[in-house]
Amino acid sequence: MTIKESWLLPEGIDELMPEEASQLEILHRSLVDRMRSWGYQLVVPPLVEYLDSLLTGTAKTLDIQTFKLTDQMSGRMLGIRADMTPQVARIAAHKLRHQSEILRLCYIGSVLHTLPEGQGKSRNPIQLGAEIYGHAGPESDVESIELMVDLLNVTGAVSTIALDIGHVGIYRGLAAYAGLTEFQEQALFSALQRKAAAEIEALLVEYQLDSDAEKMLQILAELNGDRAVLQTARQHLQKAPASVQQALDTLEQIAEALAQRLPSLAINFDLAELRGYHYHTGVVFAAYKQGSAQAVAAGGRYDDIGEEFGHAQPATGFSMDLKKLATQLPATKAQPDVIGVTWQDDADLQKLVESLRQAGKVVVYQLPGSEVATTHTLVKQDGHWEVAETGTQTRG
Amino acid sequence: MTIKESWLLPEGIDELMPEEASQLEILHRSLVDRMRSWGYQLVVPPLVEYLDSLLTGTAKTLDIQTFKLTDQMSGRMLGIRADMTPQVARIAAHKLRHQSEILRLCYIGSVLHTLPEGQGKSRNPIQLGAEIYGHAGPESDVESIELMVDLLNVTGAVSTIALDIGHVGIYRGLAAYAGLTEFQEQALFSALQRKAAAEIEALLVEYQLDSDAEKMLQILAELNGDRAVLQTARQHLQKAPASVQQALDTLEQIAEALAQRLPSLAINFDLAELRGYHYHTGVVFAAYKQGSAQAVAAGGRYDDIGEEFGHAQPATGFSMDLKKLATQLPATKAQPDVIGVTWQDDADLQKLVESLRQAGKVVVYQLPGSEVATTHTLVKQDGHWEVAETGTQTRG
Repeated sequence: MTIKESWLLPEGIDELMPEEASQLEILHRSLVDRMRSWGYQLVVPPLVEYLDSLLTGTAKTLDIQTFKLTDQMSGRMLGIRADMTPQVARIAAHKLRHQSEILRLCYIGSVLHTLPEGQGKSRNPIQLGAEIYGHAGPESDVESIELMVDLLNVTGAVSTIALDIGHVGIYRGLAAYAGLTEFQEQALFSALQRKAAAEIEALLVEYQLDSDAEKMLQILAELNGDRAVLQTARQHLQKAPASVQQALDTLEQIAEALAQRLPSLAINFDLAELRGYHYHTGVVFAAYKQGSAQAVAAGGRYDDIGEEFGHAQPATGFSMDLKKLATQLPATKAQPDVIGVTWQDDADLQKLVESLRQAGKVVVYQLPGSEVATTHTLVKQDGHWEVAETGTQTRG
Repeated sequence: MTIKESWLLPEGIDELMPEEASQLEILHRSLVDRMRSWGYQLVVPPLVEYLDSLLTGTAKTLDIQTFKLTDQMSGRMLGIRADMTPQVARIAAHKLRHQSEILRLCYIGSVLHTLPEGQGKSRNPIQLGAEIYGHAGPESDVESIELMVDLLNVTGAVSTIALDIGHVGIYRGLAAYAGLTEFQEQALFSALQRKAAAEIEALLVEYQLDSDAEKMLQILAELNGDRAVLQTARQHLQKAPASVQQALDTLEQIAEALAQRLPSLAINFDLAELRGYHYHTGVVFAAYKQGSAQAVAAGGRYDDIGEEFGHAQPATGFSMDLKKLATQLPATKAQPDVIGVTWQDDADLQKLVESLRQAGKVVVYQLPGSEVATTHTLVKQDGHWEVAETGTQTRG
């Protein structure tokens, strides 16, 4: 490797220089404090686990996203976490299951992806998330959405938030009603995800479904808009099974609560929104910067989690990439004051330096032979050390 | 994998539950603030890099410690960082080299080791460190030591700190003077590290060195104790080359400055201390909890770093495992107050909840059907919402 190459980072792997790192640190603190104020306890899962544990109950996409390693100590396969949600679910299901019926946990840490999730996306996001375990009703979904929006507001990185809400139970219920095979369900799911109208049409013709089922699946891609969409859905999905009706009930309850709690939030209901379809079991939601197509935070309900860890419980939550948010923040305006201090062994000077640092001031030693730029300097005036603006000091 | 197994973590891999995670968060903030107050800028290097970059200028032990991966995107070998120091040196040498002649950087993040570094040690420490680039004098070593001790005091995790100081230039100079082959130097180094007196004796006899060289190498293992050891060394190493005399000069300057600045610190000079011998180029130091054999923080000078990134510059710094320090802290005494709030869509109630959270209070929604334990509750009294102690409230 030549000198020229040795400082290159792999594609999609990035790092933060002081200004961005400082933004990240500020975000980290304000968001952890905020989650704490909502009653969420922080946990710190490890960077690697046995691959089996990391992929328990998750979708195949996570398997592909996960870097694999052989553990020298056990000879078993390890994975570097590509998502912290399954780790926190394991902690909730096993380590903290007796703490309380309802468990609120939050986390923050680096994850790693084998490939970027999309064009220009990072392979090493810093994932922040919050999850509620042990509650199945729409209230915990509302709490998740509310907290997600609150955190995004705290960051200041997203001026106007737009929310997308869907429910995977609707498509799942209609697919079962239509008697789709797994392969058919998958193909139609893929077309719906891309809102590929012609393809949906062609597939439905090909499947030769009963006419009610076909109509309902056909209309699904159009059930997209404000709260009124839920009424339209009621009319068009009248013949759908009870699970679909219940999903619509849940969405209505959530719409009602959010209208009360976040009256100014722009909400788009998208009944063909199937984000995390193989993983989620109920409501799914995502937050966007208004006018942008890339979600800044996303989540949903995943009630089946925990079962394979020996403790099935309902769960709902969300996560976001903190590194991306940190780099989107406007640059901090003012540089802080930096107080320079000449290198000398003077006990009084040391005491002053210590008390200034205790007070949160930045005090930098001027090492002999190489002074750095400062805004202030410590100078001796009439036998006492004092802070003076750099350039204006007189030696006492 | 059975249910019973799926929650197990690999040996040497650990995670933090809420109480420890909260300790870690407190430590993280106070130490980052402290480093900032000394003029150190935070950077966030990535979890993985090209293996070549990660191992540039480092010792073979780091290679063995580093998990390797194949990058699907480039086909090249990646490493998961086992030490963040080379990453920060790369940043200093390349990305920030024009920022200032002197650069002070700090970092905090998870690292991963293929095998534990010693009995009972973690394979996934959280490394915190601080480095000064661009200054070659003993003053920057003193600053590093002073900051390291200051941070350990801030943690409160180490009651009485003992410091060990050595200088790899002494053994290196003597080995060159004696004309040891690389193999001989390595074998004797290994024996010195273990202070294996009989083995040192046997090796020196075997090597058939000139009698001055033999005497000086022989005495090295005994040059261990308080500041007076430096005088003893002067007498016994009179015939050593200039590089050894300069190393002793440096140690004396450091001893003098530390006596002024940290008069109560117990310092042990150990001239056979060769921690990081293949990596360090000057002073090496480590902090111990008095009476314990395992270092809680360690560092030293490594002037050759940066060369392979195209910008050779002197450097000195240290690092510590923050996770270990966090788990050694006494448990936090009091649980914070938790204010419970009944689930209802009441705009006044929402406003109060928001203002309490803004003020740093923990306010938890009582989700229908599953209330959690709280210390306080929000109740309506005479048409106004108020905080009341749980158990004593009356409904208004």
